[in-house]
Amino acid sequence: MAIRVVELIERKRDGGTLAAAEIEALVLGYTKGEVPDYQMAAFCMAVVWRGMDAKETAALTSAMVRSGERLDLSRFGRVVDKHSTGGVGDKTTLVVGPLVAACGVPVAKMSGRGLGFSGGTLDKLESIAGYRVDLSTAEFIAQLGRIGIVLTGQTADLAPADGLLYALRDATGTVPAIPLIASSVMSKKIAAGANAVVLDVKVGSGAFMKDLAAARVLARTMVAIGVAHGLAVTCELTDMDQPLGHAVGNSLEIAEAIATLRGDGPPDLVRLARVAGAEMLVRGHRARDTKSALARIDRALADGSGLAKLRELVAAQGGDAGMVDDPARLPRAPRIETLRARRTAYVSAIAADRVGIASVRLGAGREKKGDPIDHRTGVVLHAKVGERVERGQPYAEVHVAAKPADAEAVAMVRDAFHWSARRVAPRRLILGRIASAGR
Amino acid sequence: MAIRVVELIERKRDGGTLAAAEIEALVLGYTKGEVPDYQMAAFCMAVVWRGMDAKETAALTSAMVRSGERLDLSRFGRVVDKHSTGGVGDKTTLVVGPLVAACGVPVAKMSGRGLGFSGGTLDKLESIAGYRVDLSTAEFIAQLGRIGIVLTGQTADLAPADGLLYALRDATGTVPAIPLIASSVMSKKIAAGANAVVLDVKVGSGAFMKDLAAARVLARTMVAIGVAHGLAVTCELTDMDQPLGHAVGNSLEIAEAIATLRGDGPPDLVRLARVAGAEMLVRGHRARDTKSALARIDRALADGSGLAKLRELVAAQGGDAGMVDDPARLPRAPRIETLRARRTAYVSAIAADRVGIASVRLGAGREKKGDPIDHRTGVVLHAKVGERVERGQPYAEVHVAAKPADAEAVAMVRDAFHWSARRVAPRRLILGRIASAGR
Repeated sequence: MAIRVVELIERKRDGGTLAAAEIEALVLGYTKGEVPDYQMAAFCMAVVWRGMDAKETAALTSAMVRSGERLDLSRFGRVVDKHSTGGVGDKTTLVVGPLVAACGVPVAKMSGRGLGFSGGTLDKLESIAGYRVDLSTAEFIAQLGRIGIVLTGQTADLAPADGLLYALRDATGTVPAIPLIASSVMSKKIAAGANAVVLDVKVGSGAFMKDLAAARVLARTMVAIGVAHGLAVTCELTDMDQPLGHAVGNSLEIAEAIATLRGDGPPDLVRLARVAGAEMLVRGHRARDTKSALARIDRALADGSGLAKLRELVAAQGGDAGMVDDPARLPRAPRIETLRARRTAYVSAIAADRVGIASVRLGAGREKKGDPIDHRTGVVLHAKVGERVERGQPYAEVHVAAKPADAEAVAMVRDAFHWSARRVAPRRLILGRIASAGR
Repeated sequence: MAIRVVELIERKRDGGTLAAAEIEALVLGYTKGEVPDYQMAAFCMAVVWRGMDAKETAALTSAMVRSGERLDLSRFGRVVDKHSTGGVGDKTTLVVGPLVAACGVPVAKMSGRGLGFSGGTLDKLESIAGYRVDLSTAEFIAQLGRIGIVLTGQTADLAPADGLLYALRDATGTVPAIPLIASSVMSKKIAAGANAVVLDVKVGSGAFMKDLAAARVLARTMVAIGVAHGLAVTCELTDMDQPLGHAVGNSLEIAEAIATLRGDGPPDLVRLARVAGAEMLVRGHRARDTKSALARIDRALADGSGLAKLRELVAAQGGDAGMVDDPARLPRAPRIETLRARRTAYVSAIAADRVGIASVRLGAGREKKGDPIDHRTGVVLHAKVGERVERGQPYAEVHVAAKPADAEAVAMVRDAFHWSARRVAPRRLILGRIASAGR
């Protein structure tokens, strides 16, 4: 299809809509290098301004899927993927993946690296000596068949248009547009061969979405894209105003995931893992309803089969499975700074973004793509919102690498905590749910 | 100044304002190639969306001026420039320039080429055999000293940022933003060494500005930029809902300009030339007030000194001055199609845009930059809005080059005319005036 790109930009600029064929021509032209970056940048800014309707957003997603390969995992039956929009301390995948796989749902997950204050599952897994995140498509498929779980980086050339577009948006101030965010997430899930997706849209200071209304719109948009592509989609809206669980940082989060699979996890992480895991069983057609799904997840937690699956996963991908049995062998920071309460009080807030930025400063995250990270460092929260801390008792530990930036990071963690003399209610964890119909 | 370009884009996207130093760093960085096209494109779209305040617009203009040379014409005393935002049949410069120069105001005008349905002064002048529009800066200055008038293309490297930015805007749907349009016009006038500018903002179907309210905003913006740079600025808002004068097309418009300087011009063109010319004398401090300025312009029309100055200009730039004495020697189309009234009626409207597009089809204009043009072709309107045409009398002539597209163009001219059985008032020509204070 021959298109006049300027006309498409002008139409979007003036609040009009584009036909599916026009969007496809634009995206595929961009992927081939026929549509220059500057035209795509102007188009993206016009989308930030004017938005896209459901049809346009679905067409954009399809075009990005069609820009590359699409994995065929149909030999494994119904495949369910999981995705979180990212937050601070969000190691849910490391708990849910093994639990669900232990219950018989194939988990074929391609994860990303962390950027800014959001951690990345790949970075966390690389805390385990030897763990490979660069499986080939053949290795990916073989391992999925053999043990029913894979957690790796993107294997094949999935949705390359999304990769190009994301880099452009990052450089042109055009990231915050719901149709662009939603199509970016969903194009990769569709290309990766999922039949169903369980999404976790994080809301709050430590998330990309700061308010619930916008998060709902994003959730609805992703569900609509899924439905348009024949996928079942469940989207949980969950709190990211304080970090999830207690640990923030790569090695520390692996240790927390292992503890959780041993039945010793923090309540919020356990709850989120149970809800997401049950939903994956239902969406994967391995459980009739949520109640029976929850019972199976609880069994996999109680009987150690989830933990065994994690060990199997680590071993399969070349990692040192002994670290799963003895988390004390995970890399550890040379020093721990303990923060103690100056007076007895209730924690009224923990600014997730500040904790996230502090952990980036400590070396646990990266400011820009390609930066190296330190797997040992991070923060452990001993108290969450609503908990009472006695004077002199520790409320946080900062695991430092003994760098000059450490003092600043420690101060940032201290400042992230807000206190109240009066009782404070714990935060609600699950704020909403938007899902496609049927199983 | 080190800037994070993404932050500037984001701030504009979110409706914020940029400091002058930030705008300067952005524009100069762009000119040097340090800020890539795609970031500038996203920024321009954010400006289309969010606009720029007066300070930002002035800073943008200054930065574009500073991106290149600035001519020093102070040895010629007070220099007045003239600019029209462009329309169909607008040959005012060809009349006003010689008249004003004959009255002793140095006219140092760099003009552009036509694009779309707007004609360009350079294209019109090239109808005259031998006329050069590529003077060097040295030739430009020398001729201005010798005969007091120059009409050429851009000589020096004036406001190169504007040239780059305009090409980018053209390709990215970011042309229609008043701060960008106003700074583009004014940066070139300031860089070209003017002390005062008389602007003609055309309004109507044949102009870039379709409605008076938007045209007023543009006019106010340009006046404010001028004032911020120490220039006196007068902006006339004039009708472009029907073509100006009778002739549309290069050779035809040169002939009409010559006829006007001989005292035989169409009333609207004569009026506009007198108003603009008088304003240039006042702004050039060669007349005390508009009344005495008009008297001088009328004298230059009546005594032939304006015509003599045009002849001098043509000869000085290598053109065949004999064509000024005998316009019948100007290039002529091989065939003329005459349109005659099917019944006696009043002309109620002449769609300037349709006439302009018809003349592009005839070869008199270009669809895109660099297209060749045919200087011979065009349209002559025998009747303007409000005039009565008797059945069987001609109301327009289409000067055709005998191409296959001609029939379509002739039909377009026919359709451009609207008729009424009842009397129709002539259109108002001058719709408003916005000017800086003082002389």
